[in-house]
Amino acid sequence: MTLEAIRYRAGSLQILNQLLLPHQTVYDEIRSVQDAYEAIKSMKVRGAPAIAIVGCLSLAVELRAGTGGDDPVTFIRESLCHLTSARPTAVNMGRAARELMEFAENESMEKNSEQLRESVIAWIEDMLERDVNDNRKIGNYGAQHILSGVPRDSVTILTHCNTGSLATAGYGTALGVVRSLHALGRLKRVYCTETRPYNQGSRLTAYEVVAEGIPATLITDSMAALTMREMDITAVVVGADRVVANGDTANKVGTYQLAIAAKHHGIPFYVAAPSTSCDLSLESGRDIIIEVRPPEELTSINGVPIAAPGIEVWNPAFDVTPHQLITGGIITELGVFLPSELQAALTGRLTAL
Amino acid sequence: MTLEAIRYRAGSLQILNQLLLPHQTVYDEIRSVQDAYEAIKSMKVRGAPAIAIVGCLSLAVELRAGTGGDDPVTFIRESLCHLTSARPTAVNMGRAARELMEFAENESMEKNSEQLRESVIAWIEDMLERDVNDNRKIGNYGAQHILSGVPRDSVTILTHCNTGSLATAGYGTALGVVRSLHALGRLKRVYCTETRPYNQGSRLTAYEVVAEGIPATLITDSMAALTMREMDITAVVVGADRVVANGDTANKVGTYQLAIAAKHHGIPFYVAAPSTSCDLSLESGRDIIIEVRPPEELTSINGVPIAAPGIEVWNPAFDVTPHQLITGGIITELGVFLPSELQAALTGRLTAL
Repeated sequence: MTLEAIRYRAGSLQILNQLLLPHQTVYDEIRSVQDAYEAIKSMKVRGAPAIAIVGCLSLAVELRAGTGGDDPVTFIRESLCHLTSARPTAVNMGRAARELMEFAENESMEKNSEQLRESVIAWIEDMLERDVNDNRKIGNYGAQHILSGVPRDSVTILTHCNTGSLATAGYGTALGVVRSLHALGRLKRVYCTETRPYNQGSRLTAYEVVAEGIPATLITDSMAALTMREMDITAVVVGADRVVANGDTANKVGTYQLAIAAKHHGIPFYVAAPSTSCDLSLESGRDIIIEVRPPEELTSINGVPIAAPGIEVWNPAFDVTPHQLITGGIITELGVFLPSELQAALTGRLTAL
Repeated sequence: MTLEAIRYRAGSLQILNQLLLPHQTVYDEIRSVQDAYEAIKSMKVRGAPAIAIVGCLSLAVELRAGTGGDDPVTFIRESLCHLTSARPTAVNMGRAARELMEFAENESMEKNSEQLRESVIAWIEDMLERDVNDNRKIGNYGAQHILSGVPRDSVTILTHCNTGSLATAGYGTALGVVRSLHALGRLKRVYCTETRPYNQGSRLTAYEVVAEGIPATLITDSMAALTMREMDITAVVVGADRVVANGDTANKVGTYQLAIAAKHHGIPFYVAAPSTSCDLSLESGRDIIIEVRPPEELTSINGVPIAAPGIEVWNPAFDVTPHQLITGGIITELGVFLPSELQAALTGRLTAL
């Protein structure tokens, strides 16, 4: 089975509603930028790369339908601004917005409205394809790097959250590395944390690995250190919502704790992220603003209360892992780099792997 | 409000059914040893001290009703053996069983069946009272020790699982320390982990702190390291299911990970446990057998599935924290000791605090 989280045909966009997984497989029609904004905000679609792709594709759908009329540039600008505000920590939407806006403005100098629409739509459709290709490269680079460090036939990976087909246009980042290891016949097992409070691990990653027959075991977030000690973990591989210039990485809350535990056990800790998740404009992780989400995500599941009424809650969605703890490296579509090499690698001053 | 988790009057025992908390407050009648066994196994009652007390009190109820007839010693032995098997990691039940058995055998030398029943019942009733008194001492010793190390007016504590009135005969161990700090007016706030997979933190600890007006914030287990970094945590205080001779401590899964994170941040890590939770017969934590519980605890909540069907699960209920990570000390009713001092302290060769 190939998991199709984003269904796009010219003029039509559907997304797999991840709030209903793993129990129901329902595709929601995205007819407008506002539909996409709401789907991103409510987490029907999540994962930094997928957010950017769905956001941009929703714009392509509206452009094809003629929204924006004679002034598509204004419509594009306002739409991108709105989409970027839905989940501010994930950098990819912001980056795609800037690049697309620059492209649209340049095109508008020499093209009429109709031609501009066509070229912007083509740019967005190309983005979808690029993402899958980049993920396959990430998977292969990561798998080779992990295998190069171990004498064993097969490796055991621990991962966090969902970074698979459901978080990207397809294949995945950290879970893409797992997929590549499995395809090479070198994966013994992957341990997946359930990833509270939103349970992306137990709902989404588990759904993907079961669907593809990847040997996998679900644990609670609190069992990760014990798993590292008892289960001969070769490497910890996680995704990223944003990697900044010094290699500090914002990712799903709990990542920082995993990195500390990996360091304690001498296990290499990898971040897998396309270069589009890297934001060299920020120098260190201290500059990243962390989204705090509603208390209800902790105190109820599917609307059913699970905590004592009246308890206060702190619910940060992400945390920042300092680059010193990213001991394995940062896996990108350009190769695997140490945090200290990232800036040079992304600006073309260093060659891969 | 004073939370009464165990209601005992001569011949009658009721327990607050913790599976229904925090939404329903229901007391279940425990009429027999078998009732107690089932309540312990199904976790209607949990927490190592509470398990031992409920187990022994159920025996007192049956003895008062005349079960065991002319041979109460055999009945007592078989009952204790059965009760001990319900949750093997918690040491208190095993210790109470040994001590009570020894007491019963000595009494049987010089007393008839009726007198033996009476003295065994008195022994058990005394145990209930001792536990609450010991917890108050733990609370006071722990609070003083934590405060002695800080120049600040008030302290912020992070705790795990439930170690309060609901886990003991009353007051609590780690949560008893929090209660004592609050009573002294020196507690700024306590952060409680939700404690997956059984949510003792969000269901039970949250219930206790809300009921008593203790300033508290609920977090997921995965947010603990971030909380340590961002929220100026003074100390981490947890309970114990079993502390062995070298100070290694078995406690609710996730404790080991907290201890690693506390060490990383230079925050003192305390274990609060009555001496009845200490088991000097085991030299190191490697000798502790860890209970593995059913997968359904991770894959469903209140019978509603929350994970992808078909995923494999590992569900160890406890983990072992090596004594090197217990940097604050072990808080007992005799005082606060370093792990290296514990053995001498418990065998009377070292005086408290």
